[in-house]
Amino acid sequence: MRGVGIAGPDALTQLFTRSALAADGLFMPNAAIHDWLEQRRRDNDFEVTGVPFSELTGWRFEPGTGDLRHVSGRFFAIQGLRVRTEIAAWSQPIINQPEIGLLGIVTKEYGGVLYFLMQAKMEPGYANLLQLAPTVQATRSNGAAVHGGRKPHYLELFTSQEHVLVDSLQSEHGAWCLRKRNRNVVVHIPGHVPERDGFCWLTLGQILRQLRNDDVVNMNARSVLSCIPVASGHNASANGAGCAGLCTTGRSVRRILHWLADFRSRKELVQEIIPCDRVEQWRRLPDEIVHVERRRFTVRGVRVEAASREIGHWTQPLLCPVDAGLAALVICRAVGETRLLMQGRVEAGTIDVAELAPTVQCVPGGDEGPPPRYLGWVLAASAERIRYDAVQSEEGGRFYHARSRYMILEADEEFAAQPPDDYIWVTFGAATELTGLGYHLNVQARTLIAALRSILA
Amino acid sequence: MRGVGIAGPDALTQLFTRSALAADGLFMPNAAIHDWLEQRRRDNDFEVTGVPFSELTGWRFEPGTGDLRHVSGRFFAIQGLRVRTEIAAWSQPIINQPEIGLLGIVTKEYGGVLYFLMQAKMEPGYANLLQLAPTVQATRSNGAAVHGGRKPHYLELFTSQEHVLVDSLQSEHGAWCLRKRNRNVVVHIPGHVPERDGFCWLTLGQILRQLRNDDVVNMNARSVLSCIPVASGHNASANGAGCAGLCTTGRSVRRILHWLADFRSRKELVQEIIPCDRVEQWRRLPDEIVHVERRRFTVRGVRVEAASREIGHWTQPLLCPVDAGLAALVICRAVGETRLLMQGRVEAGTIDVAELAPTVQCVPGGDEGPPPRYLGWVLAASAERIRYDAVQSEEGGRFYHARSRYMILEADEEFAAQPPDDYIWVTFGAATELTGLGYHLNVQARTLIAALRSILA
Repeated sequence: MRGVGIAGPDALTQLFTRSALAADGLFMPNAAIHDWLEQRRRDNDFEVTGVPFSELTGWRFEPGTGDLRHVSGRFFAIQGLRVRTEIAAWSQPIINQPEIGLLGIVTKEYGGVLYFLMQAKMEPGYANLLQLAPTVQATRSNGAAVHGGRKPHYLELFTSQEHVLVDSLQSEHGAWCLRKRNRNVVVHIPGHVPERDGFCWLTLGQILRQLRNDDVVNMNARSVLSCIPVASGHNASANGAGCAGLCTTGRSVRRILHWLADFRSRKELVQEIIPCDRVEQWRRLPDEIVHVERRRFTVRGVRVEAASREIGHWTQPLLCPVDAGLAALVICRAVGETRLLMQGRVEAGTIDVAELAPTVQCVPGGDEGPPPRYLGWVLAASAERIRYDAVQSEEGGRFYHARSRYMILEADEEFAAQPPDDYIWVTFGAATELTGLGYHLNVQARTLIAALRSILA
Repeated sequence: MRGVGIAGPDALTQLFTRSALAADGLFMPNAAIHDWLEQRRRDNDFEVTGVPFSELTGWRFEPGTGDLRHVSGRFFAIQGLRVRTEIAAWSQPIINQPEIGLLGIVTKEYGGVLYFLMQAKMEPGYANLLQLAPTVQATRSNGAAVHGGRKPHYLELFTSQEHVLVDSLQSEHGAWCLRKRNRNVVVHIPGHVPERDGFCWLTLGQILRQLRNDDVVNMNARSVLSCIPVASGHNASANGAGCAGLCTTGRSVRRILHWLADFRSRKELVQEIIPCDRVEQWRRLPDEIVHVERRRFTVRGVRVEAASREIGHWTQPLLCPVDAGLAALVICRAVGETRLLMQGRVEAGTIDVAELAPTVQCVPGGDEGPPPRYLGWVLAASAERIRYDAVQSEEGGRFYHARSRYMILEADEEFAAQPPDDYIWVTFGAATELTGLGYHLNVQARTLIAALRSILA
């Protein structure tokens, strides 16, 4: 890690902070972003059509198990999962993709400001078909060009050990994927980086501003943004930059790691892969895998025709949630620091029993059982408490029209002063530091960390 | 985390450092430890006898799979695992124990020195039957008294959120266990803690001194010791204590996390549980599960009769390696810091593809293929390079007579100046910090981190 990488945590966060404060950019002014995305959307003849499973090319139901797999054995499979926690047991279909994907953003410095190379990325699952994505989204399979397509652009810039600003492994949706994870990386390239068609250079401030809109910044970009370190001034007492701030944060991080280790060992999560055919209460129909009461999600096949993807057209299964989700983070500002109320959350496919999740995470109306704690408070909150409120898409390469409403609400200082079991107050600085370590904040919480930056920037 | 816990990282490491420097203790002088352990060994009528599987009580081979399970569904199971990495594919029997165990040490301060409450613990797998263990070794199952025994002593001291000095999740042997992990905890109890029969108070210095001997400090204790933070002075430049030292270490930690994330995403590890009966090249005989060429390990049944355990007698399966292992760490001292040459290592049951492992980790003579890199150098090293050389037992509750030779060897500064792919130099300070984060150093590497402390103390 030479160049910028060696500059140390303070210089690194300063570099990011300067970029976050750059509210507009030289290469693609804010005023042009919307039109550019629209233009990309029009230029690319991109159509997604539902097809029965029999029309999926290269995908088949494995005899004996009913698992839906690609004939290459690569990409992902729809399998069955039997889950046991200390309070419940169930089985469900789940996406199993054991390989680690790469979500990478290339940055370069121009005029003292860090620019991020973002991609206008088509994905079949987005309701609006195209969103701002990291420079590279690659699985091992398409990195190695297994499906016969071409290698993703810029992938070669991530093979160097140098100039890495951010690098951590992060989880995906535990409700839908079995221990799925991605490497989230930001690299700094000192030399010339060509700007290819469909890519543009934006400051961190520009991207965060876009994040205030619905459905513009894709889930992978939000995840990578959440891993970017924040200046200590954001979290410690007003003049807390530098060592004192780091130490305060360090102690806070240790306290949360302890809390989470305790939570993980008190809870139980036993995951057992079973044949998809043997998942109770789910049926395979010609065009969907579905719960008998149409709960949670279905699995369907789509045909995709696109000009801008690594290959021009393909078919694949997608997971389609029956309802939109809600992820709400309650924050509180006291003594110059922002604190976040988070919960420990166990989901079917969670990598290590539990991760920190938003204050409220649910499918309003869709979940069984009583409404989750604080949902009533969130839905009844007056407008002046709402700091962030936008609908964002989840991953568009595996999920179809999976959207969630993300909210940040500010509570009074006395709110949940003694949080109930399974909830903990976390400073913003500690939360971002934990995010950087990987596998501690779930994907919804990471979107909200990025959203919180967008309103603090 | 109040009391000592809130004192911050510096006060915390000072507390541990003072205890490490206390070469003898007030409660159990060094001279008495050996006799005390011998006395405990004699006092406890403890016998381990091999029995055919048919004589295991409460264990049975599941019809249809041949998995060896406890009738309660708890404890652990012997299942089959099919493994695929980017260079090899194989299947093998494996221990599957999805719950997180607790390895906890209670400490108290006396005369300004921290004392550790250690247990003389009988385990059926130890060749010498009894070793120094953490205060508590508990699975969820015996924590909840599932097998009808009594709860482990002192377990209640670990339920508080306060006074926690160390707390992280750590992996076990990836070659033998599927994603097995334990919570490693050190708590500080300000009030009176009764010293029960079979327990004694030792300083960290005393325990580290015992670690220089063969087969005294058990694997779980070594793992917990490896998580204890070290003073920055140990690793940064001479006057590196405090902030500058922390920042140097912080940068070093980030560099290694990046290296490991890259390694994990470049390598591949696909783990699929299969019926034990369908593991290729392995056979189930009446008294063992064995490789057709008697490679690697066998699984056998034992009957245990003991007075000191939670219950007086029981039967269980144990995994018996065919040969002793070797784990050697090459270190180098330069410019006032100690650096460790580590490798990224993928094993069948590794939690997240790979962890950092010792420079050499193998079963000399037992492994297939060419000898591992640096093995020749280690075995040919002259006596003055050898800083540590002791035989230690692996976990005695799952493995039978599983022993490894642990070595630390000092190389010249120019040794592996440009380490080959898959190897990395790590400062001692960064290695201990990474250990504290959990899941980054494998269990053999952690024993060597503890061993390194024993020779630096």
